[in-house]
Amino acid sequence: PNTLLANTGTTIFTVMSALAVEHGAVNLGQGFPDADGPADVVRAAADALLDGRNQYPPLTGVPELRAAVAAANRRFWGIEADPATEVVVTSGATEAITACLMAVLDPGDEVVLIEPLYDTYLPVVRMLGAVPKLVRLEPPKWELPRAALAAAFGPRTKALLMNSPQNPCAKVFTAAELAFLADLLQKHDAYAICDEVYEHLTFDGWRHIPLMSLPGMRERCMRIGSAGKTFSLTGWKVGYVTAPARLAGVVAKAHQLLTFTTPPNLQRAVALGLAKPDAYFAELAAELQGKRDRLSAGLARLGFGVLETRGSYFVSADFRPLGFAGDDVAFCRWLTETAKVAAIPVSAFYADAATAPRHYVRFAFCKHNSTLDLALARLEAAL
Amino acid sequence: PNTLLANTGTTIFTVMSALAVEHGAVNLGQGFPDADGPADVVRAAADALLDGRNQYPPLTGVPELRAAVAAANRRFWGIEADPATEVVVTSGATEAITACLMAVLDPGDEVVLIEPLYDTYLPVVRMLGAVPKLVRLEPPKWELPRAALAAAFGPRTKALLMNSPQNPCAKVFTAAELAFLADLLQKHDAYAICDEVYEHLTFDGWRHIPLMSLPGMRERCMRIGSAGKTFSLTGWKVGYVTAPARLAGVVAKAHQLLTFTTPPNLQRAVALGLAKPDAYFAELAAELQGKRDRLSAGLARLGFGVLETRGSYFVSADFRPLGFAGDDVAFCRWLTETAKVAAIPVSAFYADAATAPRHYVRFAFCKHNSTLDLALARLEAAL
Ligand SMILES: CSCCC(=O)C(=O)O
Ligand SMILES: CSCCC(=O)C(=O)O
Repeated sequence: PNTLLANTGTTIFTVMSALAVEHGAVNLGQGFPDADGPADVVRAAADALLDGRNQYPPLTGVPELRAAVAAANRRFWGIEADPATEVVVTSGATEAITACLMAVLDPGDEVVLIEPLYDTYLPVVRMLGAVPKLVRLEPPKWELPRAALAAAFGPRTKALLMNSPQNPCAKVFTAAELAFLADLLQKHDAYAICDEVYEHLTFDGWRHIPLMSLPGMRERCMRIGSAGKTFSLTGWKVGYVTAPARLAGVVAKAHQLLTFTTPPNLQRAVALGLAKPDAYFAELAAELQGKRDRLSAGLARLGFGVLETRGSYFVSADFRPLGFAGDDVAFCRWLTETAKVAAIPVSAFYADAATAPRHYVRFAFCKHNSTLDLALARLEAAL
Repeated sequence: PNTLLANTGTTIFTVMSALAVEHGAVNLGQGFPDADGPADVVRAAADALLDGRNQYPPLTGVPELRAAVAAANRRFWGIEADPATEVVVTSGATEAITACLMAVLDPGDEVVLIEPLYDTYLPVVRMLGAVPKLVRLEPPKWELPRAALAAAFGPRTKALLMNSPQNPCAKVFTAAELAFLADLLQKHDAYAICDEVYEHLTFDGWRHIPLMSLPGMRERCMRIGSAGKTFSLTGWKVGYVTAPARLAGVVAKAHQLLTFTTPPNLQRAVALGLAKPDAYFAELAAELQGKRDRLSAGLARLGFGVLETRGSYFVSADFRPLGFAGDDVAFCRWLTETAKVAAIPVSAFYADAATAPRHYVRFAFCKHNSTLDLALARLEAAL
């Protein structure tokens, strides 16, 4: 078997979800809502199955979804994109990320990555024969390491792969941070792959800013969104890339080799979802903000050092104040097996867990309030 | 952009479908049925959307589909596989092929491929840094080139990628041919990736034999099936890999990086489909055989040199008897623009079109009888 893949671990999300089932734990690990998204969108997907359009849709997506993605780009972020040539629908954001990396990387190219990072980034970069250059956000504020970033860019830099709102830090990159990145990208003539699956899930007045919307960035950025996250339907696996035509065409070639197309009924339903009024998106964020508050407050009451959460599904917390002796992996094992609450050790988001922060645990709060309360009650009982 | 991808053409199937639309041509190019598959399977997919199971399913597929794939392996081919560890559901056979190649190839490894071949094979092999070794089936009988195959295998051979029933030749590999391949695979300790998406679509008493069912092959083969082709729902993009646990685990790692999961409602409906009685599969093949007969007879009447079609959706025909002067690409352009019938030039299934046979055209017959008749009438009028 392939050496790199055989040495790639099963994703921590699958491992912890299986462990949660095994121990009857409340699953605050893997990031998925426990209530399906809008009933009208789900109903539209069911109806769309029944009208005889179940054969291959166009390679880059059904026209109605490409148009809806372009319209959402304009409405929310002021980005203009041609739906015919600058939008590619993929079978989820995971495929979108892999397709974008494939589209720009040649073997030997360098890619700047920001830790903590999502767990498919590194193995895909390595599979493509590219060279990762890692820089770290510094907890507890997860500030951008400007000097390290500037040093990571060089003559062989082909791309930056970034994620905002960030998983697991729940950081929303600021305009100033993005301007700093834009400057580096222009200076080094590099592309940016922007994983923005939590674009609509921001709190407390924090607003997502796509790097692509900054001056000079329109031609360099591949921006990735996710219907799973925007409509609380993570199983649908519908993602979308917005990119300048020249790059979108190459992303489409990658898509052709990876899945070729994405189920048309789900695409058509997502198109309806993206056309929902602003209120839908605002209410989704408000609802999640309430859940974040509920879980953060509960964890703080129990003694955790709860970090700020500006966006995403996740809150991270420092468990050292509880007096637990082991590292984050040991803590998560104890959490799952003894407290019966599953969560994710933050070191799982680092290339080298040995040198990563080992005292943070990530909890997903995209769950029923009763689920969050049950988790908190179990934690309280176990502590 | 990535050099290899930027130089990969948009798939001929998309190009010809677009051209068909542009010229109002009957589309006998891209291989998709023009009638959706079983209504109960489609209805089950719609119902499954509505019961609140729209979040991430397990990485390797929902248990009911993995069990159904294992049961179909046993029922149709006498292959025993553990649904928990030896079946991986993918977002279509395209993803399955790419995932299997990723699972076994390291850069520099050699892969034996048989031309004519499906158009994702070569770019994926090259993207992985592996070295393709091409051998050609010889028209008009598409016989296995035994000496060339034996010569293509060598000390660096890691895998054979094969397709039976074959697209576009419509060849069904015989037991003797498979035994020859099995012998080479064992002698060179190589894997086989078996693209068997047309496994149920064979005619005239020809029966598909999975290479995996031969002695000694169980541990070396990754066998790929497709719900799209088996249930005439090509847009669903549900595929499945059966492989020994050691390899299936690595295929799952590839799947984790490519799409992670496949929509659960479609998986659950396909599980029902695979449990259909033998009569369903027999009737599907019989119906397609009737369409093959209709199109083949019509083409022969018009003067084409029609090749034998033992399986798949496709019939290939020699157009030289018609007295057309140009090559197959020119003929297909004339077909689409003048006769208003779209088809695929067979040279598109070769790495090097310049040295490929240039006098065959592939027609898809998985269409309404009225569509086939219309195509034949248009051809007759144009000739
Ligand atoms: C693809 S499973 C992981 C879901 C997720 O984004 C997360 O938990 O971080
Ligand atoms: C993925 S589009 C091509 C469909 C097909 O298998 C073919 O036409 O050969």
